[in-house]
Amino acid sequence: MRILVTYDVSTETAQGRRRLRRVAKVCQNFGQRVQKSVFECDLNETSFAKLETDLLAEIDLKEDNLRLYRLERPYDRHIREYGRFRARDFQDTLIV
Amino acid sequence: MRILVTYDVSTETAQGRRRLRRVAKVCQNFGQRVQKSVFECDLNETSFAKLETDLLAEIDLKEDNLRLYRLERPYDRHIREYGRFRARDFQDTLIV
Repeated sequence: MRILVTYDVSTETAQGRRRLRRVAKVCQNFGQRVQKSVFECDLNETSFAKLETDLLAEIDLKEDNLRLYRLERPYDRHIREYGRFRARDFQDTLIV
Repeated sequence: MRILVTYDVSTETAQGRRRLRRVAKVCQNFGQRVQKSVFECDLNETSFAKLETDLLAEIDLKEDNLRLYRLERPYDRHIREYGRFRARDFQDTLIV
């Protein structure tokens, strides 16, 4: 199944910026960055559960927001993309 | 149908920041902000076409990235949310 991960991590503090990096790293282990804070991941049930567990271990529920969307096939009928693919730009800034 | 709109608008220039505000305003006309750059919109085919047209009129295809996802019912089985709902914080910053 394809899972879309979107997140808002509060970056007002150094801890927040650290969480942002760590959330992105978790997502990178499971899928493809498509926007700054959006990843698409092709997963089975086991890896989906692991992704969710890993993300919940990193985010601060009082400060951040995490959303997981399950997309249905055929994906090309459920996803439209326009414009420049900028994911690589952001990835560079995330190396710790 | 429920449409998820996600966008990355380049904010390196004043024009980019203006586009970001305008893209958010278009989305606000059609749905509910759920994260900083993520909206959920319940639309029929006509309003979906209008949303897409309005968004494409605002973004710069060379600089920005726009993605539209169609979600299937039942929505509560396709969407999981964790953490703080921060949408209102961001909305405040968008009043021009």
